[in-house]
Amino acid sequence: MKAEVLTIGDELLRGEIVDSNKSFLSEKLLGIEVETRFHASVNDDPADMRDAFLRAADRSEIVLVSGGLGPTRDDLTVEVLAQTFGRALVQHEPSLRRIEEFFARNQRAMSPSNAKQALVPEGCEVLPNPVGTAPGCMLDVGRAVFFCMPGVPRELYRMMEEQVLPRVAARLGGSRGVMRAALLRTFGLGESNLEDTLADVGREEGVILGFRTAFPDNFLRPVARAKTAPEADAKLARASAAIEAKLGPLVYTRGDETMESVVGRMLAERGLTLATAESCTGGLIGARLTAVAGSSRYYRGGVVAYANEAKRDLLGVSEALLREHGAVSAPVARAMAEGARARLGADLALATTGISGPDGGTPEKPVGLVWIALASKDGTEAEQMIFPFDRERHRVITAQTALDWVRRSLLGLPRLVPRYVRGATR
Amino acid sequence: MKAEVLTIGDELLRGEIVDSNKSFLSEKLLGIEVETRFHASVNDDPADMRDAFLRAADRSEIVLVSGGLGPTRDDLTVEVLAQTFGRALVQHEPSLRRIEEFFARNQRAMSPSNAKQALVPEGCEVLPNPVGTAPGCMLDVGRAVFFCMPGVPRELYRMMEEQVLPRVAARLGGSRGVMRAALLRTFGLGESNLEDTLADVGREEGVILGFRTAFPDNFLRPVARAKTAPEADAKLARASAAIEAKLGPLVYTRGDETMESVVGRMLAERGLTLATAESCTGGLIGARLTAVAGSSRYYRGGVVAYANEAKRDLLGVSEALLREHGAVSAPVARAMAEGARARLGADLALATTGISGPDGGTPEKPVGLVWIALASKDGTEAEQMIFPFDRERHRVITAQTALDWVRRSLLGLPRLVPRYVRGATR
Repeated sequence: MKAEVLTIGDELLRGEIVDSNKSFLSEKLLGIEVETRFHASVNDDPADMRDAFLRAADRSEIVLVSGGLGPTRDDLTVEVLAQTFGRALVQHEPSLRRIEEFFARNQRAMSPSNAKQALVPEGCEVLPNPVGTAPGCMLDVGRAVFFCMPGVPRELYRMMEEQVLPRVAARLGGSRGVMRAALLRTFGLGESNLEDTLADVGREEGVILGFRTAFPDNFLRPVARAKTAPEADAKLARASAAIEAKLGPLVYTRGDETMESVVGRMLAERGLTLATAESCTGGLIGARLTAVAGSSRYYRGGVVAYANEAKRDLLGVSEALLREHGAVSAPVARAMAEGARARLGADLALATTGISGPDGGTPEKPVGLVWIALASKDGTEAEQMIFPFDRERHRVITAQTALDWVRRSLLGLPRLVPRYVRGATR
Repeated sequence: MKAEVLTIGDELLRGEIVDSNKSFLSEKLLGIEVETRFHASVNDDPADMRDAFLRAADRSEIVLVSGGLGPTRDDLTVEVLAQTFGRALVQHEPSLRRIEEFFARNQRAMSPSNAKQALVPEGCEVLPNPVGTAPGCMLDVGRAVFFCMPGVPRELYRMMEEQVLPRVAARLGGSRGVMRAALLRTFGLGESNLEDTLADVGREEGVILGFRTAFPDNFLRPVARAKTAPEADAKLARASAAIEAKLGPLVYTRGDETMESVVGRMLAERGLTLATAESCTGGLIGARLTAVAGSSRYYRGGVVAYANEAKRDLLGVSEALLREHGAVSAPVARAMAEGARARLGADLALATTGISGPDGGTPEKPVGLVWIALASKDGTEAEQMIFPFDRERHRVITAQTALDWVRRSLLGLPRLVPRYVRGATR
């Protein structure tokens, strides 16, 4: 079964918005073993929308459409879809009542433009929207089945999961092959290095090894196909095991976990707590740790020690150290980590101090330099790194390296200074 | 001139990656007044790539292709493009030398797969890649001109700006109309409200008013067209002024500034400093403030007071207050802000304490509740809000509301409790 994802909206083609709906929809389709062959986007332009609908109906069996269901003047999806396939627009009374109730419940006046959201193509199946005013619809046009969903991610997610996926799954025949995929997240090696290291891996028939850069990580995606599920599972398990055997702890997790959730889980399992003292990362490590629900079990908090006075007053870094070595130095990084550990009463404490740029470098301490320190009951270690990246990426890779250091220390492994090749990789 | 953006890669169609290259490329084209009419993505599949190339050549005059120039086994763009339009692949000696030099300079062994990156279609113009190993190319196929660029964003950005945009601009005739666009960023009103409030705005001929949700903001995009640049500028100025007259300080900036850079600029202009005391936002406000280069001029730092002990020991919030009112309360929010202001020696201090969920709520203090406080020399104010969003969005809107509060206070305006309509908006 060939699937296509079509997103609609001037804002996409003006480049104002990064279209994450396409990747969400394709990932969900892949979860039920339906491959997306085409992504397309068009403006809120009736002629271009019509062309896109016709072409999709011609080359794809499942067409997921996102966007253009809103109340505003440029929302035309349902109207143009109906016209393209010769359907009338009809008012869907239950949807109209739901919209009216929605506004009443939220004690808000219903705007006239919201009523238009209850119009659907004749003969479609209406898909309820539990978290918004626009219903979706499923329209079978013979060659293809169209599923129209809102562009608002939160509404799209619910409708895709609850309404669309079960209907697509029901249309799948039982005679097809089976596909299984895994995601292995690595940190610390560039993509060219990974490709070369894994040159002999994933060469089994029916196995494809995909690579993807998600700075500062690289993700590996083995995909296995076979006639039966046990065969596909076995192929996938062999490929994943071969990758992990080659890469060891460079693979920090399989699946959807982030580095911060891996670190959090490991801390919680060991009954340990962490504190942070952030200068150049400015709160990024704390923000990432606390993005994980339940992080209060293992994260005590931290100090964003941006000004030197904050390092002194909140972390107890001495004036003498700051004067003698400068804020970006091993002794200050160590003192920051030790100060955070003591003042926050944590088992472990991370510190970062560096020059993320674009300004502030000197010949001795260039832009890109960073010191990371980790304090524990066994003492404090500090390591210097130079990350040749722009400000944003410098902060991101510093945070990731620091969190990875905690992970490695909990595993009893030495810390790692990540290496990168800057060649094109995608 | 009709432009199309084509991105290539299995990872896009498996949904593993959110394709931000498309929006980048379209935004850049719009900057030289070239509209993108189509976005398309295909797998690393020669037949699908060929179809996409042929269709693009048929319907578009400028085709920007991103991805598939890397050294790995699934990078096929140049090879398939050459085949599709009947060109041989030839080795580009200067590119091969650049690749060799690149690896020598980085003291790395060149992998055999990197040499293939020097192959280009016969008759193309090679576009140098100053930050990676894969050169790009421009291929005129008669009906259309193709520009192939790497998929790695950093390399794509440089090549687009330095190599592709000037060549596209040079192909533009002088007789076309002129388009001007502006971006107005608003915070605090839902999109349906905005649409209704602005129902009579942007109705002038040749003016289109686009709406876009970028949680927690809503962006307005007036686009004006006219025969001459002064006419288009005047139309755009009228539309922008009409929007700002209707919305007042709900528009927090025009253009590319973020809320944190607006706040930073205003603090710097006034010679004031800010500190933060973050509980539920966990460092997010600090991370956003320090994402702006030069933020050390006005941001002193902060405390991520996640555990109660951190509120007590690092911010001086009394045990009695915590016991009597709980961590999520007006007195504790006030004490956090005052503690941060005093201990970090700042003119202003923000504090957040709330229940971002998914757990931790009680009937009296439900999930979604947050207290924000702002301390200044004039005293300390605290405000309670309930944001009915998931954990991530709760933290994001809390941070945005807090920063907006600083902005409004610097403008002498009352603080704003944002209102949201949860209807579909895109």
